[in-house]
Amino acid sequence: MEKLTIRRAVKKDCPRLMELIRELADYEKAPEKVVVPFKEFESSGFGIAPVWWAYVAEYDGKVCGFALYYVRYSTWRGKCIHLEDIYVEPSMRGKGAGGKLLDAVVGETCRLGYPGLTWQVLDWNQPAIDFYRSRGASFEREWIDCSIYF
Amino acid sequence: MEKLTIRRAVKKDCPRLMELIRELADYEKAPEKVVVPFKEFESSGFGIAPVWWAYVAEYDGKVCGFALYYVRYSTWRGKCIHLEDIYVEPSMRGKGAGGKLLDAVVGETCRLGYPGLTWQVLDWNQPAIDFYRSRGASFEREWIDCSIYF
Repeated sequence: MEKLTIRRAVKKDCPRLMELIRELADYEKAPEKVVVPFKEFESSGFGIAPVWWAYVAEYDGKVCGFALYYVRYSTWRGKCIHLEDIYVEPSMRGKGAGGKLLDAVVGETCRLGYPGLTWQVLDWNQPAIDFYRSRGASFEREWIDCSIYF
Repeated sequence: MEKLTIRRAVKKDCPRLMELIRELADYEKAPEKVVVPFKEFESSGFGIAPVWWAYVAEYDGKVCGFALYYVRYSTWRGKCIHLEDIYVEPSMRGKGAGGKLLDAVVGETCRLGYPGLTWQVLDWNQPAIDFYRSRGASFEREWIDCSIYF
């Protein structure tokens, strides 16, 4: 029996998703930046007008990873998917969960008829860069991220 | 009488918006990358489920600039605005249109109750970097853009 399964996230996954989001932020050395209130997170994904969607990886019935995305608009390409987060718990790596999560998002991008997907990786996260390269990703380093937060 | 006005883009602005999008792509040395079909662009902004919105700057009744944005989802911050494009025709610069367009998007971000906005700038576009810095933007250079287009 296959122990690893990929499925769409449902509302009751939200507490576990927030745990994994915090784990990923820890890994990205930014744990203090996760300030979204749980209720906002839940309603943004499962309220009347969702703005994010996700797949989860389950191993032996426990959610061990996720890929969360939203629809972005490129004035060059049109509607695309932006993969906001993809993460697998360290102890559950090496079983193919990351690849299958990425496959699920790529598949959904195709089904929606969008031309492709974008995401970002930290420049020191070499294992992730190598993984994305092995999956045929292109990389661009000439854009600087800008922000204004109130 | 004020010759410069900022207003929300309407459907009939779409042809002019596409012209300006192409001008901006030329400036960004990527004119071949604008492949979005006009009808897709128009319906994505003014169809039954819009995914982008824009403000335009008019000078003497002619649209000379625009700011186009969409709603993104940050798992750290929640719903935010992503400013996809902001552009003013070269011959119309120095009249404050860029600042007023950015003000309009910042104002809308506040009205929506979102915590802030993000965008990107090319690392060689020093005039834009200086302008954004003067407006209080923060910059991050450690994220690499990744993409898969089919």
